[in-house]
Amino acid sequence: MSDPLLISSLQNPRIKQALKLRERSTRKETDLFLIEGYRELLRAVDAGRNIETLFFCPELYLGSNEGDLIRKIAHTGAQLLRCTEPVFRKISYRDRPDGLLAVAPQQHLSIADLAAQLNPNPFLIVAEAIEKPGNLGTILRCSDAVGLDGLILCDPCTDIHNPNVVRASVGTLFTVPVVEAKGAETLAWLKQQGITILAATPHAEKEFTEVDLTGPLAIAVGTEQLGLSPLWLEQATLQVRIPMCGIADSLNVAMATTVLLYEALRQRRLKS
Amino acid sequence: MSDPLLISSLQNPRIKQALKLRERSTRKETDLFLIEGYRELLRAVDAGRNIETLFFCPELYLGSNEGDLIRKIAHTGAQLLRCTEPVFRKISYRDRPDGLLAVAPQQHLSIADLAAQLNPNPFLIVAEAIEKPGNLGTILRCSDAVGLDGLILCDPCTDIHNPNVVRASVGTLFTVPVVEAKGAETLAWLKQQGITILAATPHAEKEFTEVDLTGPLAIAVGTEQLGLSPLWLEQATLQVRIPMCGIADSLNVAMATTVLLYEALRQRRLKS
Repeated sequence: MSDPLLISSLQNPRIKQALKLRERSTRKETDLFLIEGYRELLRAVDAGRNIETLFFCPELYLGSNEGDLIRKIAHTGAQLLRCTEPVFRKISYRDRPDGLLAVAPQQHLSIADLAAQLNPNPFLIVAEAIEKPGNLGTILRCSDAVGLDGLILCDPCTDIHNPNVVRASVGTLFTVPVVEAKGAETLAWLKQQGITILAATPHAEKEFTEVDLTGPLAIAVGTEQLGLSPLWLEQATLQVRIPMCGIADSLNVAMATTVLLYEALRQRRLKS
Repeated sequence: MSDPLLISSLQNPRIKQALKLRERSTRKETDLFLIEGYRELLRAVDAGRNIETLFFCPELYLGSNEGDLIRKIAHTGAQLLRCTEPVFRKISYRDRPDGLLAVAPQQHLSIADLAAQLNPNPFLIVAEAIEKPGNLGTILRCSDAVGLDGLILCDPCTDIHNPNVVRASVGTLFTVPVVEAKGAETLAWLKQQGITILAATPHAEKEFTEVDLTGPLAIAVGTEQLGLSPLWLEQATLQVRIPMCGIADSLNVAMATTVLLYEALRQRRLKS
C-alpha cells in the first residue's frame, strides 16, 4: 500500500468528524460509528464488517500485530489516515489509546433478519430500554460467551453504536446478532414462534433455577432503575426471581443477565 | 437537634478535608473514608458503622426519608454540617448528588476476626489484586446477594475504601465482612481450615458446574488483565473453567465471580 496521509492538525475535517461521532445525533445522521482498539477492530473485520476510515498512530501501538490488521483493513478498501500522537489522543475515547480507531458504517438487523437465520432451539435476550452503555456492552460480552443466537434491543435508551458499548463489549458487538425493534413487534413475533419469554422480577414465586430453560427461550431484562415494563412482565410466559440472601434488593442488570444466561446454558448443555 | 452550621465556602477546611479523602494517601493517613448517598449511608448506619461528620444539603434530596436518617446519624454523635448547593456539588463524587455525604472511620478486619465468626460451612471469596473499584464494588454486591460469609482481599491494588467501591457496592460494603490480608497468610489459613480453594482458569479441564461446591469453599478470583497469580493457581484445591462458547476468551472478573457465586449458591441450596 502507498504511504498514507499524515494528519497533524486537530482542525482537520476528518478529525472533527471522528470527534462528532461520539454524539448520538451525528451517528444517527451519518449512519456511521466508531470502533476503537486492536481487539475490537480485529473482531469487527473477522466478522466481515466494512471499515470506512482507519486512523492509526504507530507511536501508540501496544503489540506487534497492528501492521497485519492494518493491511487486512486496507485490502477492504478503507481509507488509511496516519495521525500524530497528539491528534490520535484527541480522537481516542480511551485513557490508554492503542493507536487504532476506525469509522465504520452501522449495521441494522430486523426481526426478519434474525428469523431467517434462527436455529431450531433459539436462545435469545430481549433487552428493554437499557440506559448505561457499559451494561449493554457487558450483556453483549456475556451473550457471546454463552453462544446466544441474538439480542433484541427494544425501545432502546442507549444506542448500540455508542462507543462505550463497543468498548465494554470488547468487540462482541460484532459476533452477537443485534436487532433493534419495537416492544410490541418483538412480543408478537416471540409468541408466534412459540418462544418462552422469561422475565426476572423480585415478586416471582419460582427461582430461576427451578424452571426449565432448555427450550426456545428469550430472557427479557429491563432498565437499571425500574426493571421490565408492565408490558413485558404481563406478557412473559415465565416469571422467575433471582434469590437475594443479603440486604440488597437486586443485582445490577448486567449481573442479573449473566446469572440467567449461565443457568440457561448449564441446563441446555446438560440436556444436549 | 440544634441548627447545624451552614457551610457556604469552598475554602472551608472541612470541605477541603472531604475532597482530599478521594485520594488513597489521605485515606491511609487519616484512616477515614467517604460514604455518599442515602442508600449507602442507611446501610452503613444499619450495620452499626460510626459516622464522624455528615455533610447534607436538603436542596438536593431525592426522597422524603432523609430527615429520619439524619436524626439517626445525629444520635450517634456525628457532627452535622449543612452545605449550600454549590458546596455540596463540589464534595460530591456523583453526577447526580442526593445531598448526603459522610466522613467515617475505616474498619479493618483480620483473618482472626473472620475466623472468630465463621460458620461451620464457610462460603468465601478471595479477591487478589483487583484493580478497578467498580469491579470490587460489583463483587461485593453479588457477595451480599448470595449471603457470602466474607471477602478476603489479598495484596489489593484498589483499596476497599475507594469512593467508587462504596458506590458500586451500593452499600453492601457494610454488610459483607471484608478482610485485608497477605496472600500467603490467607492460603495457609484456608488450608489449615480445610476450606476448598476454587480457582477459575481457562486452562482447567472441568467446568464449574461439574464440581461439588457445597462444602467449605473459597472462590479465588484474580486481576482483570492477568487472572490469578501462579501462587493461587498452583495452591488451589480445585481448578475449573467457565465455558466460553463465542469469540471472546474471558468474562470480566465481576461477571465471572457472579457466575461462580450463583452456581455455588444453587448447589448449596439444593443440598440444604
